[in-house]
Amino acid sequence: VQVVWVRNSGCLVVCCCFVFCRRPPKLRQISWLLFVFFSSDIEISRAQSPKAVDVLAKEIGLLTDEIEIYGQTKAKVRLSLLERLKDQPDGKYVLVAGITPTPLGEGKSTVTIGLVQALTAHLKINSFACLRQPSQGPTFGVKGGAAGGGYAQVIPMEEFNLHLTGDIHAITAANNLLAAAIDARILHENTQSDKALYNRLVPVVKGVRGFSSIQLARLRRLGINKTDPETLTEEEISRFVRLDIDPSTITWQRVVDTNDRFLRKITIGQANTEKGFVRQAQFDIAVASEIMAILALTTSLEDMKERLGKIVVANDKKGEPVTAEDLGVTGALAVLMKDAIKPTLMQTLEGTPVFVHAGPFANIAHGNSSILADKIALKLVGEKGFVVTEAGFGADIGMEKFFNIKCRASGLVPSVVVLVATVRALKMHGGGPSVSAGAPLKKEYTEENLQLVADGCCNLQKQIQITQLFGVPVVVALNVFKTDSPAEVDLVCKIAKQSGAFDAVPCNHWSDGGRGAVKLAQAVEKAANQKSSFKYLYSLEHKPLLEKIDTTIAQKVYGAEDIELSPAAQSQIDRYTRQGFGKLPICMAKTHLSLSHQPEKKGVPTGFILPISDVRASIGAGFIYPLVGTMSTMPGLPTRPCFYDIDLDPVTEEVKGLF
Amino acid sequence: VQVVWVRNSGCLVVCCCFVFCRRPPKLRQISWLLFVFFSSDIEISRAQSPKAVDVLAKEIGLLTDEIEIYGQTKAKVRLSLLERLKDQPDGKYVLVAGITPTPLGEGKSTVTIGLVQALTAHLKINSFACLRQPSQGPTFGVKGGAAGGGYAQVIPMEEFNLHLTGDIHAITAANNLLAAAIDARILHENTQSDKALYNRLVPVVKGVRGFSSIQLARLRRLGINKTDPETLTEEEISRFVRLDIDPSTITWQRVVDTNDRFLRKITIGQANTEKGFVRQAQFDIAVASEIMAILALTTSLEDMKERLGKIVVANDKKGEPVTAEDLGVTGALAVLMKDAIKPTLMQTLEGTPVFVHAGPFANIAHGNSSILADKIALKLVGEKGFVVTEAGFGADIGMEKFFNIKCRASGLVPSVVVLVATVRALKMHGGGPSVSAGAPLKKEYTEENLQLVADGCCNLQKQIQITQLFGVPVVVALNVFKTDSPAEVDLVCKIAKQSGAFDAVPCNHWSDGGRGAVKLAQAVEKAANQKSSFKYLYSLEHKPLLEKIDTTIAQKVYGAEDIELSPAAQSQIDRYTRQGFGKLPICMAKTHLSLSHQPEKKGVPTGFILPISDVRASIGAGFIYPLVGTMSTMPGLPTRPCFYDIDLDPVTEEVKGLF
Repeated sequence: VQVVWVRNSGCLVVCCCFVFCRRPPKLRQISWLLFVFFSSDIEISRAQSPKAVDVLAKEIGLLTDEIEIYGQTKAKVRLSLLERLKDQPDGKYVLVAGITPTPLGEGKSTVTIGLVQALTAHLKINSFACLRQPSQGPTFGVKGGAAGGGYAQVIPMEEFNLHLTGDIHAITAANNLLAAAIDARILHENTQSDKALYNRLVPVVKGVRGFSSIQLARLRRLGINKTDPETLTEEEISRFVRLDIDPSTITWQRVVDTNDRFLRKITIGQANTEKGFVRQAQFDIAVASEIMAILALTTSLEDMKERLGKIVVANDKKGEPVTAEDLGVTGALAVLMKDAIKPTLMQTLEGTPVFVHAGPFANIAHGNSSILADKIALKLVGEKGFVVTEAGFGADIGMEKFFNIKCRASGLVPSVVVLVATVRALKMHGGGPSVSAGAPLKKEYTEENLQLVADGCCNLQKQIQITQLFGVPVVVALNVFKTDSPAEVDLVCKIAKQSGAFDAVPCNHWSDGGRGAVKLAQAVEKAANQKSSFKYLYSLEHKPLLEKIDTTIAQKVYGAEDIELSPAAQSQIDRYTRQGFGKLPICMAKTHLSLSHQPEKKGVPTGFILPISDVRASIGAGFIYPLVGTMSTMPGLPTRPCFYDIDLDPVTEEVKGLF
Repeated sequence: VQVVWVRNSGCLVVCCCFVFCRRPPKLRQISWLLFVFFSSDIEISRAQSPKAVDVLAKEIGLLTDEIEIYGQTKAKVRLSLLERLKDQPDGKYVLVAGITPTPLGEGKSTVTIGLVQALTAHLKINSFACLRQPSQGPTFGVKGGAAGGGYAQVIPMEEFNLHLTGDIHAITAANNLLAAAIDARILHENTQSDKALYNRLVPVVKGVRGFSSIQLARLRRLGINKTDPETLTEEEISRFVRLDIDPSTITWQRVVDTNDRFLRKITIGQANTEKGFVRQAQFDIAVASEIMAILALTTSLEDMKERLGKIVVANDKKGEPVTAEDLGVTGALAVLMKDAIKPTLMQTLEGTPVFVHAGPFANIAHGNSSILADKIALKLVGEKGFVVTEAGFGADIGMEKFFNIKCRASGLVPSVVVLVATVRALKMHGGGPSVSAGAPLKKEYTEENLQLVADGCCNLQKQIQITQLFGVPVVVALNVFKTDSPAEVDLVCKIAKQSGAFDAVPCNHWSDGGRGAVKLAQAVEKAANQKSSFKYLYSLEHKPLLEKIDTTIAQKVYGAEDIELSPAAQSQIDRYTRQGFGKLPICMAKTHLSLSHQPEKKGVPTGFILPISDVRASIGAGFIYPLVGTMSTMPGLPTRPCFYDIDLDPVTEEVKGLF
């Protein structure tokens, strides 16, 4: 039975007009405006009490034993749901992507939330938003929180921005257990004989010596079909006990969910107890972990465990890949991730459902929330409902990876792409002065300037063209700021439609909630009835790695003239191809601030040669990962980090300064 | 109104005989024995379904809005409860400590749980167990899980041993944010002029320049009574913007909750972006973080915030302490810890309540669970009830710190100490062969040997004497193993009573649950009616730091002849005394494997000189922290870590191999 939650959740309508209820029309309007202009995101978030999450779960058709409640406002949803609803047809699948953004972000999350608020509370169509969990690094560093904003937010926003249900912490724990296992194993192999290693790895327990199941699997991979530890030859023992990792090939790094720039390059193993086995290493931000990508791309507990085991951490001295499974740690990683695999249910300011699950960045990772959250939501909304999911940063990276990596792993076919633009970002692309976090905006951005807007629309046009490469209709959502003039807004919409967008509409969800995104919702609904002729950009089977990177992504998507491979990158491509990983899709690590590799090149750069400095492999996640130029995988803290303004009132327990 | 939960929770009695229900007496006994001998801890844990945590919460008198449920079996309890029950008299307060253990542990957690199961389900007295949360490092490393064992366990044990409600992850996040803030601040100060720093630290926002509240507090500490940023003199600006941290004095380390030995000594800051500001640093295991100690010792949200702000991370170049508050990060740390401060409610195998909260190790930290959990539990059990809390490792370290640090911070007065001993550990102290994890036990430990037992009782006697220094009656609990002979058991109990124990009883909770600890419960109840003449071992006001370390702890408790201070330790003591920290209590970092600093010296070592290699200060937690000899604050992974046996069944979602 399909639940129609717009009918049985009365509070939705109550919610979206909570400021209006008890005042005459004129006063209403004034108090509304005063509240909007003088309220921070967290004040708006706090002014609305979320409904209890078990009530929300019931409204959207979840059974009692399908949820695990975490406090009043968050719940994990069990994967058993997918089995129960397996015959239910999927809803429509909408991707929110964006033009090349300023460092301030152009509001894709608010559009996502505004859109579902409009669909559900105003057009009475079941809908679900699927968002990424934000990293605590930027929350306490430069960017601040990421729950949407204004009247298009996930609430409570402090829960969304803090530990949530602990998924990123679980990823950190799993990632670092694997890292510790690699170095400890090298040390033990370097300081022990084959016999000593064998005695320790396969000890006598209660008089019996036996292989663990993970060791039996390793024996089978080595072609040793024996199960009795006493029967191995010396040569077999040596092969079994020695992974023989070449330390110079280790690609598995440690992670923390903190902006800690001093961990970008470190030397480890300098204590006497490590007996001189020092090496250079680094910490990445936790969301860049391959385990985050696995969480986002997995389709079941079994699949996740298999992917975790397949993670390649290094090569052995013969050049063969060494995996997490070889280290005997697959089961432990799966145990650490057993709860993280369940999506977290929250709600918008208007009481509509949201899944928050997985949070890879789109520049240094694949930038999309989880397949499992999308799949569950598509079942829950029913055939006529909508699931709106978001891809990070510009369409050139977040959306490209959504189609070529995420949709390929899920088999899901998107109906519509919503492309978010702002007058501010378009002016920047048109030649406006540089925009940076913390600095006040120049007057070009606060006063009407039609020429800058017109010139900057080249970036919008290019991102529309990129979307069209995939055969999916695109609706442009212009996220309107109070400083945008009506003429500027009209101009953007006109150019967008001329550039091939199915439609282009201004949105005011930040100040008006779902009401401000009704036109967008109507356009999306109409576009979803178009025939989508979705296709991947490249074939996995027929294109070698180099061609996928070069002619397909660099040239077709970014507009590069060519690529330039470093010798390291070339040798990695050769190695991965030889190791049998040549048929994986590509996840480019590229700046989000330009279509090119140079952040300062705005608009539509042409004639550039894209430098590929290195190529890595995320075999568990299932992609090859070229680094474009120098990409930092660890953000830093600025002179005045966000944490200066973050505080806790010890009496009311209220959080201040998260925005 | 005092809730009597032994009356209204019928399932307790059902639970504790769940194996017996439907079989005739003889068969019962056999099936019981078969089940006990062939079941692992996790199988026993899984054989008993825990009651829903909201049911448990109601049974013990919690109101609906005083708990935050995390899944079916865990809940956080709000601190508001303390206000509601502030006029309720406290229950009896029992500490479980132990003799000097073998590396396998002697079962203090199982005694704690067996004792509350006996008190509640068998003697019908309200009782609560308060335990530490285990670190994931040892769980996946050498030691394995820590939920108790056999029929005296916290269930579900996999929840207890994994992420629980995320408190250790919150500590890691807070600890590492502070660490990142230190190095980033040094970099920014080293690469910017006073003016540039000032412009960034106090920026113009929307046309206005203002100090944040944390900056105003810093100005007041500097004696600059100004609130308008435009009015500071150049000299005042310079003092305000420069913390002038001396990198060689940084004592704040990064942490991970993973046994990662290669992080024991590292060099950080080697990327070009850090401009050559490299320095040597280390990672500690997360439970060694001062923030863990703060969580364990705090008494309210306000107190925690104050303690977080007071953390001293380094000295400035003039030798003055630099605090977390100086770095502007107090509020952010409090926000990260806002949920962690609430104790987590779970249950024993017999359905009685347990708080799990905070988990500092007792060798490298103060080794006790939280004051808040104990305080809440003491209110909930009521005047006639019992709260049983556990101090880590031997009484010489865990118990000494319980009395001198934890009781001093809480003001609570303990009624009874339960001192846990095993025949195995006593034989080791009597000269038995060495015992180590992973290796089979020698026959001395599996066959009767009265001489070894008699010789080893010196350690038990010494730990009883240490307890008596504090004026609290001591009951010896002999944790019986199936290989112990009746004569061995009798001998230990006899010697214990001769040595001044109030009573000494054998316990069989591991195989029999609460039923096996009824005699212990009766002895504890009787001892609690004795007049306790509790006293601290030293006065904070009248004893200088050196004397507290030397004559009081080293000589009176450990039995050392003297101490030997390294020059570094001497200069740190001088510095802390000069900085006004001389009146803090002492938290010795000493091996738990001997009363001395040498793990191989068993029994009661005498005539030794205790080497103090360094002295650190945990000003937020409120203690001075001398390091005895070389103490590692980061465990390592052995050749065959526990994770080899840990696995997840992807179909049933069952965890295997945690024990």
